[in-house]
Amino acid sequence: MHIMEKSKILIQLDTDAQPSVFDRVVAIDSGVDQLFSYGNVKPEQVEALVHGAIFTRSPADLKNTAIFIGGSDITIGEQILGIIRGIFKNTGMSVSVMLDSNGSNTTAAAAVRAAVRHTDVASSHALILGGTGPVGQRAALILARTGAHVRIGSRQIPRAEAICQAIRSKIPGANVEAVSTASSADGPKVLEGRDLVIAAGAAGAVLLPQKIRATNQSLRVAIDLNAVPPVGIEGIEIFDKAVTRDNTVCYGAIGVGGTKMKIHRAAIAKMFESNDQILDAEEIYDIALRL
Amino acid sequence: MHIMEKSKILIQLDTDAQPSVFDRVVAIDSGVDQLFSYGNVKPEQVEALVHGAIFTRSPADLKNTAIFIGGSDITIGEQILGIIRGIFKNTGMSVSVMLDSNGSNTTAAAAVRAAVRHTDVASSHALILGGTGPVGQRAALILARTGAHVRIGSRQIPRAEAICQAIRSKIPGANVEAVSTASSADGPKVLEGRDLVIAAGAAGAVLLPQKIRATNQSLRVAIDLNAVPPVGIEGIEIFDKAVTRDNTVCYGAIGVGGTKMKIHRAAIAKMFESNDQILDAEEIYDIALRL
Amino acid sequence: MHIMEKSKILIQLDTDAQPSVFDRVVAIDSGVDQLFSYGNVKPEQVEALVHGAIFTRSPADLKNTAIFIGGSDITIGEQILGIIRGIFKNTGMSVSVMLDSNGSNTTAAAAVRAAVRHTDVASSHALILGGTGPVGQRAALILARTGAHVRIGSRQIPRAEAICQAIRSKIPGANVEAVSTASSADGPKVLEGRDLVIAAGAAGAVLLPQKIRATNQSLRVAIDLNAVPPVGIEGIEIFDKAVTRDNTVCYGAIGVGGTKMKIHRAAIAKMFESNDQILDAEEIYDIALRL
Repeated sequence: MHIMEKSKILIQLDTDAQPSVFDRVVAIDSGVDQLFSYGNVKPEQVEALVHGAIFTRSPADLKNTAIFIGGSDITIGEQILGIIRGIFKNTGMSVSVMLDSNGSNTTAAAAVRAAVRHTDVASSHALILGGTGPVGQRAALILARTGAHVRIGSRQIPRAEAICQAIRSKIPGANVEAVSTASSADGPKVLEGRDLVIAAGAAGAVLLPQKIRATNQSLRVAIDLNAVPPVGIEGIEIFDKAVTRDNTVCYGAIGVGGTKMKIHRAAIAKMFESNDQILDAEEIYDIALRL
Repeated sequence: MHIMEKSKILIQLDTDAQPSVFDRVVAIDSGVDQLFSYGNVKPEQVEALVHGAIFTRSPADLKNTAIFIGGSDITIGEQILGIIRGIFKNTGMSVSVMLDSNGSNTTAAAAVRAAVRHTDVASSHALILGGTGPVGQRAALILARTGAHVRIGSRQIPRAEAICQAIRSKIPGANVEAVSTASSADGPKVLEGRDLVIAAGAAGAVLLPQKIRATNQSLRVAIDLNAVPPVGIEGIEIFDKAVTRDNTVCYGAIGVGGTKMKIHRAAIAKMFESNDQILDAEEIYDIALRL
Repeated sequence: MHIMEKSKILIQLDTDAQPSVFDRVVAIDSGVDQLFSYGNVKPEQVEALVHGAIFTRSPADLKNTAIFIGGSDITIGEQILGIIRGIFKNTGMSVSVMLDSNGSNTTAAAAVRAAVRHTDVASSHALILGGTGPVGQRAALILARTGAHVRIGSRQIPRAEAICQAIRSKIPGANVEAVSTASSADGPKVLEGRDLVIAAGAAGAVLLPQKIRATNQSLRVAIDLNAVPPVGIEGIEIFDKAVTRDNTVCYGAIGVGGTKMKIHRAAIAKMFESNDQILDAEEIYDIALRL
């Protein structure tokens, strides 16, 4: 008999030297009672840590233990998630897990969630600039799943094609297309016919100059996810939140930041509803839609 | 005047790179309010950490601060306990401390506690296979203290003799005997006349084959502490919990796991009753007996 | 609308390998709900950590997040405080911050607070022995601000002069004077006319021998901050708390320890009153005066 509910324990596996303060504050503000924060987590350390999560509480109580994977390196983050899936399979035990290295899933979900307010994303023609980075990939995946046609832009077209393949392997028949953004001459062509553009490139690169946007007639929603000037879509300001500029509804990084935080908190809270959830891009977007 | 009781603080000194999730969850589920977890703890760091424990609260409040020593290396764990005893002696101040590196004390106590349900351990003739490892040593010590005759088996007889000496130095007149388990021919001889056998060897080694057990008439209780197949006592299954096989009551590692967890939680809770308890093998077994 | 007050989060940035247990216990006993403890903090890691503090809660809630800078190296501690001030300036966002590396600010404030009970420090003539160390510098600064005439003693006079300059740059017209304590012959001269002496030197060095004190007529209050014998002011005992010896009121390290703890706790609690306080030597002394 359990009279008292078990404490909600979140195990933060962070691949950076110091576990993220950002993720810790959000965890606490999402209702976590006890936060076990690990920094500098290596793939070979994951098994012992996860065994400690799954072998310490009765099955009925395991929904009160969960794992958060963070840190700036999404590649190692995904590797750790893969290891955890394997442990769950081998042991038949599990706790819920959320992957949000570099804030990639919550940011991508927030961007698409913002677009949904202004356009029918299911029938949209989207362009992701910086589409091979952690956030860009996930925004493309989420849009493709809704049924959108998605152009994935990269300066290196083979990298964009690899992302397209990865998305098609998850979503058979996904409507994705790799496009080159290597030269400034590519701009008008890749933007042609697009009603939604999301810029998720690295800091410091202008991906869509003002003069190219000015010649385009199709664009309805433009979202830039760079919090540090210069932004990727010239003319957007980081605080923009549904600001109309040149007939286009614009969002900047801080403009979607509030939604990102709400999604992040809701995803943390949702993990504690059962012990069998794996929250990656698509699941986190589902949470975003229900906010 | 203290109106509010101080938070129960547990300081986890773990010698592994990442402090054990297992020990952290159990600590929280034992009623600890604030868990200070340290990984990669080095003996030379212990003094400053312990000073922080003993010099921050009034003597009356020190029962609300305690130290847990964990990690996979019991040798360093024991060294740290020794350093802490020295600090308490030098300063005249103390908090309660529990040593459970590698789960050794709680596992050994759980194994003997299981045996107590089926036999009079005080008059038993026991054999510890893998008797020089962290769990085996402690099981032998606990049994010797109850008055049992204990054979300590090892492939290297000098190591088993060293453990016997160590036990005799703690328990004058302890009835312990070093036996060789180097060759398969040793099996029937060391098992002869034994009513209790506990296998606490390293993973992957069969210490007691089925055919040897089949020829033995004295064995009443057999406990295997290896959670990963093959188990040390052939024929036992890891989920066995008082399962009778060939007239012998059998326990596997998971079969004693529930008791181990209860002992672990009770030991953590007990530390907060006063500021002067050192919980090592014998004290943890005393707690096990009162459950 | 916030029905529930946010948890009080303290972010402990410790420059030592293991974050101080001492500072952690005091934080919890000061009412902190969630303590995020970081060890081995490097200046280049501070920005990401501080961004996590200032960008996760609404401005109205930021008073419930604060930063504590600790560790044994006050120089790196001050560097980290400088970095944090810069981040606050650049972002226009802030949380409260307290610097107490090596316990320097709380110890210096406690020493001067003890002196206040027995003498009018504003008109006192003080001597700080070991005046260039972390605690000594801060005691000198606090005394200078009250208007005292302060001699700052060091075996290396250029170092003492550098401290004088630093104090004058913060307090124009500060009445500070560098004095040499290089040879035993310096003692009577630097002590002449002093009514207050505070010894804050490194462990193991007798800074003021009994025979020099015996020939001095002016001394009224003597405070020694060394907790490990030999104390810096010969004749004082570490438990002395307003003990009169040779017409001088004496305090030892443990004698001022209770006041230090009260100041430390009050300073932690004060950070959570608003999100814009920087608690360094002078601010912590102000808190000490109000206790």
